[in-house]
Amino acid sequence: MSANTDRYENAVARYFEAWNARGSEALAKAVDAAWARDGRYTDPLADAAGHEQIVALIAAVQSQFPGFSFRPTGAADGHHDTARFSWELVSEKDGSAPVAGSDVITLDARDRITAVLGFLDRVPAENREA
Amino acid sequence: MSANTDRYENAVARYFEAWNARGSEALAKAVDAAWARDGRYTDPLADAAGHEQIVALIAAVQSQFPGFSFRPTGAADGHHDTARFSWELVSEKDGSAPVAGSDVITLDARDRITAVLGFLDRVPAENREA
Repeated sequence: MSANTDRYENAVARYFEAWNARGSEALAKAVDAAWARDGRYTDPLADAAGHEQIVALIAAVQSQFPGFSFRPTGAADGHHDTARFSWELVSEKDGSAPVAGSDVITLDARDRITAVLGFLDRVPAENREA
Repeated sequence: MSANTDRYENAVARYFEAWNARGSEALAKAVDAAWARDGRYTDPLADAAGHEQIVALIAAVQSQFPGFSFRPTGAADGHHDTARFSWELVSEKDGSAPVAGSDVITLDARDRITAVLGFLDRVPAENREA
């Protein structure tokens, strides 16, 4: 694995650590580690800017899906200051994965996330957009 | 099709018009129409900033693949100021498509592209990265 590949894999690993962090202190610490101070997160349902909004968003999603965790599907595909990867939201109880998506991140010189552009590949039928 | 869907589809249509524009005048005009003045384009092989660099990049790719054109595969999937879509580089002679990719674009308030983050899904065997 090259130094550059490490760069993307490590940034994506910190991103998943944030989404799966339990407890407000661990979550705030993980968001600090993953995102640049003015970093953003945007997906079809949310647009959060800065650590405070990102922490609040992740906490809200976690409380909407208790007993689920985020898991990468496949490796990160990175170049220059950007990388793409896909993920599933997996039930720790039965392994079902009702939600899946693909994200593109951009990184700063310290490998912190400046922006996430997130897209949904699979959503529960009752939540589909009209 | 909603006004917002139109916004993404129109921006993506202008993007393909630029990639397929023939002749330097038509290409410059199409890049002007598609990208914001300080817009960027980044993929695994290229990183271009501003209209002049983007025009030069597109002209170089066109001369590398004479008789090919870019075609979207599927619809644009947009939200907020971003959209994703996939494409193929198709031979006008035999319909073969040796190169395919997926791009994520961000738009400004005038629906001009501020950034393209491009990724390759299929490349000719001799061009694969080691």
